[in-house]
Amino acid sequence: MFLDIVKKRRSVRKYQDRPVEKEKIDLCLEAARLAPSACNAQPWKFIVFEKLEAKEQLCRAAFSGIYKNSAFAGKAPVIIVALNTKGKRLPSLAGRFQGKHYPLIDLGIAGEHLVLQATELGLGTCWVGWFNGRGVSELLGLSRHENPVALIPIGYPADTRGRSASRKVLEEIAVWGWGSGG
Amino acid sequence: MFLDIVKKRRSVRKYQDRPVEKEKIDLCLEAARLAPSACNAQPWKFIVFEKLEAKEQLCRAAFSGIYKNSAFAGKAPVIIVALNTKGKRLPSLAGRFQGKHYPLIDLGIAGEHLVLQATELGLGTCWVGWFNGRGVSELLGLSRHENPVALIPIGYPADTRGRSASRKVLEEIAVWGWGSGG
Repeated sequence: MFLDIVKKRRSVRKYQDRPVEKEKIDLCLEAARLAPSACNAQPWKFIVFEKLEAKEQLCRAAFSGIYKNSAFAGKAPVIIVALNTKGKRLPSLAGRFQGKHYPLIDLGIAGEHLVLQATELGLGTCWVGWFNGRGVSELLGLSRHENPVALIPIGYPADTRGRSASRKVLEEIAVWGWGSGG
Repeated sequence: MFLDIVKKRRSVRKYQDRPVEKEKIDLCLEAARLAPSACNAQPWKFIVFEKLEAKEQLCRAAFSGIYKNSAFAGKAPVIIVALNTKGKRLPSLAGRFQGKHYPLIDLGIAGEHLVLQATELGLGTCWVGWFNGRGVSELLGLSRHENPVALIPIGYPADTRGRSASRKVLEEIAVWGWGSGG
């Protein structure tokens, strides 16, 4: 059941040293690849970090100084850097016209496909948005058309207790039956 | 399997007249409610339109003029307006500092939970970003702290053929094993 996966997912911040099978990461990437996006622009790219030295370089670039609260991500066996890429112009222009930036919505969708697929496979993840984006861009040599939006560490959870963050009650976030007409 | 749901999901633009059970919409909203968000801000609200007159009002506000390409959504038995709400300041400020707008990512995540839950239940959906946001805001009497980001029509698909949009190949969107270190 989909809702079981949703309920199982939580933000995991401690990981086992146990390596993550490449086939599982491939499945996560495949789930992201199939995500919908405005005008099917697919404005995303996922860079997989798994080698120790590469991860260390990433962490120095991403989690120094004011970003050190996110350094837990560096302990994960795999870290994925999720980039927004500049694709087709239409959604980008349309979004600017409307004051919405579709590529961010799209990246949220694709990244969550990845996260939910990982959850089903027994893997822990965490959306990390608080990191030095400029530092990561310089490390990866990104162009100005590529923007690192989130880091997603992946690994087997070390903290098995299911602490879930609380949520607003449904009545607070949903309004049923707007309008009085029949 | 999660990937089966992902593969089953497609953008449905024709719906049966058959009403959608309230319990199913509730499940979709519940899946959205449990979504993760930056600092757990949950910057979202979902307004459910199902009454005929209310839907007609929404469609006049949302799909007039240059937005008429999205008018197919008005034929769905249910339309959900997904709003970004201004919640805690931290993610908003942090995002501005970094040039990212987290609430849009968060809405992508929560909205896709809703969409995938609908898919599992046999319902068709479509992310609609191209609509008159100001018109919808005026109709709903939204404050400047509430921003209609997407409309999501929901209904049983009338076009049963599984036309899926093509996707970039995995090699184009994923880079494996960045760096040369061990």
